[in-house]
Amino acid sequence: MVFLADGLAVRNFEQGPHITSRMGHGVHLEPLTLLSALAVHTERIGLAATASTSYTAPFHVARQFASLDHLGGGRAAWNLVTSVSVAEARNVGFDEHLPHAERYARAESYVDVVRKLWDSWSDDAFTADKAGGQYFDPQRVFPAGYRDEHFAVEGPLNIARSPQGHPVIVQAGSSAAGQKLAARTADVVFTAQPNLESAIAFRTGLRQQVEKAGRPADALKVLPGLMPVVGDTEEEAQRAFAELQGLIDPEVGMAMLSRLLGGVDLSGLSPDAPLPELGGSNAIQSRLELIRGIARSGRLTIRQTYTAIAGARGHHTVIGTPETVAGVMEQWFRAGGADGFIVLPALYPQHFEKFASQVVPILQERGLFRKEYAGSTLRSHLGIPRKEHFTSIDRQVA
Amino acid sequence: MVFLADGLAVRNFEQGPHITSRMGHGVHLEPLTLLSALAVHTERIGLAATASTSYTAPFHVARQFASLDHLGGGRAAWNLVTSVSVAEARNVGFDEHLPHAERYARAESYVDVVRKLWDSWSDDAFTADKAGGQYFDPQRVFPAGYRDEHFAVEGPLNIARSPQGHPVIVQAGSSAAGQKLAARTADVVFTAQPNLESAIAFRTGLRQQVEKAGRPADALKVLPGLMPVVGDTEEEAQRAFAELQGLIDPEVGMAMLSRLLGGVDLSGLSPDAPLPELGGSNAIQSRLELIRGIARSGRLTIRQTYTAIAGARGHHTVIGTPETVAGVMEQWFRAGGADGFIVLPALYPQHFEKFASQVVPILQERGLFRKEYAGSTLRSHLGIPRKEHFTSIDRQVA
Repeated sequence: MVFLADGLAVRNFEQGPHITSRMGHGVHLEPLTLLSALAVHTERIGLAATASTSYTAPFHVARQFASLDHLGGGRAAWNLVTSVSVAEARNVGFDEHLPHAERYARAESYVDVVRKLWDSWSDDAFTADKAGGQYFDPQRVFPAGYRDEHFAVEGPLNIARSPQGHPVIVQAGSSAAGQKLAARTADVVFTAQPNLESAIAFRTGLRQQVEKAGRPADALKVLPGLMPVVGDTEEEAQRAFAELQGLIDPEVGMAMLSRLLGGVDLSGLSPDAPLPELGGSNAIQSRLELIRGIARSGRLTIRQTYTAIAGARGHHTVIGTPETVAGVMEQWFRAGGADGFIVLPALYPQHFEKFASQVVPILQERGLFRKEYAGSTLRSHLGIPRKEHFTSIDRQVA
Repeated sequence: MVFLADGLAVRNFEQGPHITSRMGHGVHLEPLTLLSALAVHTERIGLAATASTSYTAPFHVARQFASLDHLGGGRAAWNLVTSVSVAEARNVGFDEHLPHAERYARAESYVDVVRKLWDSWSDDAFTADKAGGQYFDPQRVFPAGYRDEHFAVEGPLNIARSPQGHPVIVQAGSSAAGQKLAARTADVVFTAQPNLESAIAFRTGLRQQVEKAGRPADALKVLPGLMPVVGDTEEEAQRAFAELQGLIDPEVGMAMLSRLLGGVDLSGLSPDAPLPELGGSNAIQSRLELIRGIARSGRLTIRQTYTAIAGARGHHTVIGTPETVAGVMEQWFRAGGADGFIVLPALYPQHFEKFASQVVPILQERGLFRKEYAGSTLRSHLGIPRKEHFTSIDRQVA
């Protein structure tokens, strides 16, 4: 699938336009409109867009993802995020970013609202009975009728149930609250894991939680991020990586680190000072833990810390020949650290093309990557079943 | 342009799924995703989607329309509505529909927020200076910094300024508050006018208000709705119309009338009872006036009233040969009742095709409709200029 990260603000803008202008990202087409355009120019690839549960009404999100799922014939995925910055809050009418616990409490309700809205109509609701003058069967519509302390949503959704039943739900929150939400509701988890050991521990723990939540462990696919830097030789790959690392602007590196630490002010410090003690914060909790781990293990300076995370933002980086990269992927997969990967090339289109043309064929040879599609929906590509409507499940049981 | 009406609820659902199922509309693809798909399969046609100022944050609306404008190379239009039903309110967390005056007060601020967001970046902001390591010029970004009693929006928008500068703004509110808003901010007004006299009065009055608001009268194009029922002979057209009218289900007709009257309960009354006295309501004010006019002029029954409005929902209906329809359009245009029309075929694709293949050529012969496009943007098709950024206007003045 094509996976579009997103936020409701120009990234890092709160640190000043000067910094943002040196980062060169965060200003782009809006994901749902862009993927709708791509949906009608592609046939099989999954289409994953990010949308926030903190700053958009669930009706809009449920509706636009259902519409995207219709447009692409069943390939939509919603990457559910709770948003990360005060800048986003300030673009939609709040003075402060919602605290972490409140964001996740809200997200738990939000997913339930969206899933109820996606079940507003049974798959066979639209009878289009011209002779009888009936467009749908009034017995086959199920308004959400949702009301709790976070949301009041009557429904039904004003779009028919979509090809996948429910678009795929992706989550990237790897904190305890994020894992709890994912275990109950996600189909895919995108996670930053610095090494195989942590990846195995994360996936094993999450699968246990999935089972505790009453779902089969395989219902959720864990996809760690992977930044491949591929060269014809190990040396060439290392050179390419070093060249990229050399391009990291110290000001940008410090700003990025400060942001990943939830807005900790590093501006008065030298890049070569030791990383200061990290307190609690309203940042991405799991990323904060990861940086703590990096800093703790090696007693790094600020510069060493941002250098270690600036390229792949904390995701695992593999540098080497196509065989090396394919080998690491196979190792993670076979050892239970991953059900697959979100590939994060550092440079488009060059690094993506190298990966696609040189690494993928090796994975195919080893039987680890498909040679042709077995189905047409993203759920089929992921090996997870279509989400059937509760009335059709009732009928099957009866 | 393709113009997609929309609402945030299944239309008439508050009157019961039984009624809605007999109306057969209100369940469809979401407009912004659909038009994004159409944008990349068309080259010239304008793409107008409806979005509400009452129930979506302005940041999302500004961003998605800017994105659509980029995707289509400058063909996006935002049909600004304030929403019409309590069902919409109840889908996004409100218990009651916002009152008319509050909706319009909010809309006035909303447009200002959106336009400020669309001006977040000057057209030449993105310098993409690789050597200097600068993606944009920090001097050419202009956060909205908006705060009033309705909205607090910091900005900037996280998408570049779009091809048209601002997507075209369409409005359909023809009440006093709607006209005031349109006079100050709209490029196009879509209006329901039952006859030429009222159309001239409406357009003349609105143009005066546009000038009072400090804009040239021609900056706003008035497009009344027009339902053409075309036949090879007058008799054939009348037969086609009578056939359509005969399909109006009394229950649906009464429900539609009740809804246009803002939820007035007609359910206990016979369709052949006289239309009851109409009080004030939270309905579409201008449509209420129009129904009052119809009812007053002819002392109609409930059935006669809904029969008169059910087909074209209060828009002007022209029944006749292609020459008759073209003649009425020319008459309205030359007499100052219209700058153009929003054509509302009763039956797709048949009535649309008849209009396109039989009426349009006559309009072209008479020099009233283009034979080829002069430009590539919707603003160009409408004969209104690109919206230049305030900094480039400053430069021109200097």
